[in-house]
Amino acid sequence: MQPAAGSPVTCRRPAPRDLLRSLGERFGERYSTGESDLHRHGRDDSPYDTTPPDCVVFPESGEEVAEVVRLCARHRVPVIAYGAGTSIEAHIMAVEGGVTVDLSRMNRIIAVNAEDLTATVEAGVTRKQLNAAIEKTGLFFPVDPGADATLGGMAATRASGSAAVRYGTMRENVVGLKVVTADGAIVRTGARAKKSSAGYDLTRIFVGSEGTLGIITEVTVRLFPRPEAVSAAVCPFPDIAGAVATVIRTIQRGVPIARAELLDALSVAAVNRYSHTEVEERPTLFLEFHGTMSSVAEQAEAVQAIAREHGGRDFEWAVDPEARARLWDARHTAFPAILQLRPGARAFVTDACVPISRLAECIAATIQDTRASPLPCPILGHVGDGNFHCIILADPNNAAEMEEAERLNQRVMRRALESDGTCTGEHGVGMHKIPLLVEEFGEDGVELMRRLKAAWDPLNILNPGKIVRMT
Amino acid sequence: MQPAAGSPVTCRRPAPRDLLRSLGERFGERYSTGESDLHRHGRDDSPYDTTPPDCVVFPESGEEVAEVVRLCARHRVPVIAYGAGTSIEAHIMAVEGGVTVDLSRMNRIIAVNAEDLTATVEAGVTRKQLNAAIEKTGLFFPVDPGADATLGGMAATRASGSAAVRYGTMRENVVGLKVVTADGAIVRTGARAKKSSAGYDLTRIFVGSEGTLGIITEVTVRLFPRPEAVSAAVCPFPDIAGAVATVIRTIQRGVPIARAELLDALSVAAVNRYSHTEVEERPTLFLEFHGTMSSVAEQAEAVQAIAREHGGRDFEWAVDPEARARLWDARHTAFPAILQLRPGARAFVTDACVPISRLAECIAATIQDTRASPLPCPILGHVGDGNFHCIILADPNNAAEMEEAERLNQRVMRRALESDGTCTGEHGVGMHKIPLLVEEFGEDGVELMRRLKAAWDPLNILNPGKIVRMT
Repeated sequence: MQPAAGSPVTCRRPAPRDLLRSLGERFGERYSTGESDLHRHGRDDSPYDTTPPDCVVFPESGEEVAEVVRLCARHRVPVIAYGAGTSIEAHIMAVEGGVTVDLSRMNRIIAVNAEDLTATVEAGVTRKQLNAAIEKTGLFFPVDPGADATLGGMAATRASGSAAVRYGTMRENVVGLKVVTADGAIVRTGARAKKSSAGYDLTRIFVGSEGTLGIITEVTVRLFPRPEAVSAAVCPFPDIAGAVATVIRTIQRGVPIARAELLDALSVAAVNRYSHTEVEERPTLFLEFHGTMSSVAEQAEAVQAIAREHGGRDFEWAVDPEARARLWDARHTAFPAILQLRPGARAFVTDACVPISRLAECIAATIQDTRASPLPCPILGHVGDGNFHCIILADPNNAAEMEEAERLNQRVMRRALESDGTCTGEHGVGMHKIPLLVEEFGEDGVELMRRLKAAWDPLNILNPGKIVRMT
Repeated sequence: MQPAAGSPVTCRRPAPRDLLRSLGERFGERYSTGESDLHRHGRDDSPYDTTPPDCVVFPESGEEVAEVVRLCARHRVPVIAYGAGTSIEAHIMAVEGGVTVDLSRMNRIIAVNAEDLTATVEAGVTRKQLNAAIEKTGLFFPVDPGADATLGGMAATRASGSAAVRYGTMRENVVGLKVVTADGAIVRTGARAKKSSAGYDLTRIFVGSEGTLGIITEVTVRLFPRPEAVSAAVCPFPDIAGAVATVIRTIQRGVPIARAELLDALSVAAVNRYSHTEVEERPTLFLEFHGTMSSVAEQAEAVQAIAREHGGRDFEWAVDPEARARLWDARHTAFPAILQLRPGARAFVTDACVPISRLAECIAATIQDTRASPLPCPILGHVGDGNFHCIILADPNNAAEMEEAERLNQRVMRRALESDGTCTGEHGVGMHKIPLLVEEFGEDGVELMRRLKAAWDPLNILNPGKIVRMT
C-alpha cells in the first residue's frame, strides 16, 4: 500500500530539452517553466507533496492540445491535463514529470441549445461560468461538486456533489465529448441525441478516466429547466443516525428531493468559527426542494413528517434566493472552514459510497473509529446517494499523524467495500486508491482496465501513474 | 455498404467436432444440435435470413458460461449470447458459425434490496418476470422496450423504450454487472452504490457492447417506488407536426412526463385491423403521468394546455390499471400489428434519434421520403427522447423492394447524423449499422472501438461481426 504522505514521485520521464524548446517556440508566452507556474500546477487539494511538471503550456484550441500530445508522444513524455486544480486525489500531479496542459484559456461557451436542453463548452469553462452564461435561458446546469471546477475536470473525474441525488452525476449529464487521444487524434464521442445505442459508449469511457485515456477539450452537457419553485431548509437532529434515517426514508419513499446534505456537529462548529455564525452545533441536514409550488410544498411536508419521527423538529425555511444562499452558506463553506480547524494540516478526504441501507451503520462505525483517534475528523455527507466524506486532518510534519490518517482512510474504504459499496463515490482514484481497485473489481477487473489503457495509450504518456499502474 | 437483405454470412469459423463432443458430454440434455433449436437461435426480428449457430448450450450458472467460453477460446470458435431473441438488429445471428449460449435457464432473481431500490438478477430474467417478482415491494423496474426481453439482452443492447423519457435507459438503470470475459474470467463491474468514480466505467463499457466484449450473466438494476398516482391519456392530432410539437414543448417546460409515444395514422390503422378496435385513424399521442395525485393532475393540465395550442383536444383519460392497459393496448400491440399489414414481409426498423429541436423536421422529411415510396412505412416515436422508428415493410423475395427499403433506411440514418443525432437510439448496431459508425464517430473514433475490442477479445470470439469489423 502506497502511503499518502510525502512525495509520490516514482520514476521520472522528464521532458528533454528538445521538447521544451519546441514547445517554447510554438507557444511563446503561453509556455512556462517559471517556478511559480510549475509549483501551482503541481498542487491540488490532496494530501501529497507538491509535484510539479517540467513545463506548462496554455493551449487555446483542441488542435493545439493535439499538437502538444503529438510532440509528447514523439518524445514519450507524460502529458497531464489541468483544469481548476481542485482535485482531492492528486489527479494533476506530474508524478513522472512531463508537460502540463492548462486548459483554463479554453473557456468559450461554444453553443447553448436551449430548445434541446444542452450546452457545448470548451473544457476550461467552469460550472459557475456556464450557469452565469445560461441564466437568461431559464435553464441551469445542476452538477455541483462544491468547488468551481471546470467542466472538463468534472467530466474527467466523474464528479457529482450535492444535487446528484436528484439530477445525477457527470455520468448522466455529459451528452458527448471532444477528446484528444494519445496519438493526437481528435475524436467526437457522441452527438447531441439524448440517448444512443451506437456502439461502445465512448463518452462514458472517457468520463471518469482522469486524463489517462485522452484529454477532454470540449464537453456537451444536459441542462434542466429552472424549477418554478425552490425552497430550502436546515434542520438539526439530536444525533447523526436520525438525520441519516430521515434522508434514507425520504429516498425510499420516492420524494424527489433536490439536495440532502449532512454536516456533523464538528463541521457545524468549524463553519461557526470560520463564518462567525452561531448555528446550533448539532448534526444538521441541509435540504432543498425543486418543483412546482404545490409539489415543493408537498415534498417539504413529506420530509418534515419523516424528520419528526427521527427527532428533527426545528426546520428553518428559506424561499427567496438570497435567504436560501444564506441558509446554505454553512454547507458551501464547510470544506475551507474545516481546513481552518487546523491550519497547515493536510486533509485526507475519504469518499465511501454504499447502498443507502448500509449507510447508517457505515457512518456509525466510522465515528467509532474516529472518536478513538487523536485527529479531528469532521463528517460531511451526500446522504441521499449513500456517499459521505470523513475529513481527516493530519500534520504533514508528524509521521505518526500521517500514518494514523492513512490507517483511518483505509478502514473507511475497506468498510465501504465490505458494505457492497465503492472506495470512491465521486473524487476518483488518482494514486491513492489504485490498490483498492483490485479489492473492488478483482485482479481480472483491473486487468480489463489495464488492457484498455494499454490499447488506447500504448506509450503510457497520458497522466501516467493514475487509476492503474502500467509498470 | 452491406445490404440488409439476404444472408449475412461472411467467413465461417464452424465449431470443430472436438469442441462439439466436449460440449455435448459436459452439458448433456442442455446441449443441442437439433435443426429446430439451431433455426430458432438464428432468427430474430431483423430483416436478415436465418443464420443458425453450430450448436446451442443452455448453461445454468455464470461458471458454466465461463466454461463454454474457455472451450470456445481454446478452439477459436465464436460464442454468441442469446436472451429472448427479440433483437431488431441481428445481434444473435451466428454470422461466422459457432456456439450459441442460451441464457434462458439463468432466470433466478438473486436479490431484491427494496431498501436500496436495487435488484440483482441472472441475465435470463425478463423484465416482466422481474416486475412480477417485486410487485409486493411497492417498487418497479421502469425500462420498457416493448418486447419482454431479458435483462441481460437489454443491458447488452443499451435498450430503452417508452418510459426512458422519465426514467432513463439501461445506461442509467444498470448499477452493476457480472460478466464472463473472452478468456473465461468472471468479473464484477460494480458494487451496489448509487454512484462511483472508481476507475474506468466497466459497467457502462459492457452496457451496449452487444455481447462482443463479454457475456453478461448477472445484472443489478435500479428500481423505483411505484408512483402514488398514475394516469394515462390518448389524444389524436390533426397532423404529426402538432403531436410532436406538443411533446417537445412538454419536455422543454420540464413537465416530468412518464411516457409520450406517437403513432402515425397508418400505425393506428394497423392496430385497428389487428385488434378489431375502432380508434380514430389520425396521428395520436399516448401519454402517461406518474406522481402524487396533485402532481399528476398538474402535469396533465400543463400538457393539455400545450396540446390545445397544437390542435390536440380530444383527450381520452384512464386512471385505474385496467382502463390504462386498454388505452395503451394500441401502442403495445403496434409492432406485431404493423408486421401484419404485410404478412411475410420483413421489417426494416429505422432508429434515428436526434436533438428534440430537430425532431419535427426529421420526421417531416422522413414522411416525404416514404410517401414517395411504394412500401408501407408506418412511424412510431418515443418523441420525448427525439427517437422515432419508421417500419419499412418489404417483400424478401423482391430484390427491388429490399433495395428500396435499404435506401430509405440509409436516408433516415444519414439525416439523423446530419441533425447532430445518432443512427441508433436504442436498437444497437448489430451488423447493419457498422458502416454508419464511421460516419458518426469518424475513423479515429471507430479505431478506439476496434482497439478496445482487440484488447479485450484478442481472438475475436465474442459475437464476431457485430459493432466493429476486425478483419
